[in-house]
Amino acid sequence: MARWDPGAEQRLKRAALELYSERGYDNVTVTDIAERAGLTRRSYFRYFPDKREVLFGDSERLPPALAEAVLAADPDAAPLAAALDAMSRVGTWLAEQVEDAAERRAVIDASPELRERERTKAAAVTRAIREALVQRQVEADTAELVAQLATVAFGNAFRHWIDAGGRTSFGSCLETVTDRLRAALAET
Amino acid sequence: MARWDPGAEQRLKRAALELYSERGYDNVTVTDIAERAGLTRRSYFRYFPDKREVLFGDSERLPPALAEAVLAADPDAAPLAAALDAMSRVGTWLAEQVEDAAERRAVIDASPELRERERTKAAAVTRAIREALVQRQVEADTAELVAQLATVAFGNAFRHWIDAGGRTSFGSCLETVTDRLRAALAET
Repeated sequence: MARWDPGAEQRLKRAALELYSERGYDNVTVTDIAERAGLTRRSYFRYFPDKREVLFGDSERLPPALAEAVLAADPDAAPLAAALDAMSRVGTWLAEQVEDAAERRAVIDASPELRERERTKAAAVTRAIREALVQRQVEADTAELVAQLATVAFGNAFRHWIDAGGRTSFGSCLETVTDRLRAALAET
Repeated sequence: MARWDPGAEQRLKRAALELYSERGYDNVTVTDIAERAGLTRRSYFRYFPDKREVLFGDSERLPPALAEAVLAADPDAAPLAAALDAMSRVGTWLAEQVEDAAERRAVIDASPELRERERTKAAAVTRAIREALVQRQVEADTAELVAQLATVAFGNAFRHWIDAGGRTSFGSCLETVTDRLRAALAET
């Protein structure tokens, strides 16, 4: 096997998703994933630190991308408007990158460990948004609350987008969720 | 040492909080906690399954209490109104139970592992609220979104309540947060 194998990471991601779908996350080992990808267990750990991270491949790019987009939003935009504008732009880009979104969603939903990792990723998104809002001179408590609200909107919009099988744009899913949040609060 | 020691659990909680505050969560062992509480390491594990759970002592009572309160809310109440009404009642009870809330808050904020466990607890709250709303005939997508929104409101209200040092009622903190959420959405 060549030491430099440009397709390896992609094959590992695909193999992990297939195996987790077929057998359930708990019944798959890193060795199983590596074998299906035609690699060794040791090669796996050159790409991913653990058995969970293989499903969250590009997730570390999301918080800085969102922070940058929040800072680039209209300087006069209200805090949540700036956050949602950022999420709409970055989410549209993300929706183009993500492969096998529905299969991945089902695998994560079925595993407490994977859901835990997903919550950690969501917390990193919240933190990035909050810090960018604070840089926009938003008061800390408001920045935290708005960042959490935007993260809820983002996650639910992504689920809608998956459920719609790509027939609805991510931006439109985010608008629907924002409208529902507004409607829910108007009824209290 | 007597086999039945009614104060043991309380002493372990107090010892853990003190030690985590003094040395930081990562620098404390279960043996340290047990020793300060005048107990053995083995006794510790009769009360708590791991090093984190000692800070989340009564948390398993929260999801069923919230679900029950959601089901007991006015049958005509809108989904979020029912969830917030439940949170106000259960949160007021919780605020009376919780000791050393500010110290506990600071310890959790300082540790990624403890924040992770707290997110797992919050997810259990969201799930309980969602399931109770579905029992109230709320459509599944709306129940999930409203449950997440209510969980955000609950967490932020609890922080406000801690910051106010008990001088503001939990219900009033929850109203303040709900008003802020409504204001944030009105600006988008």
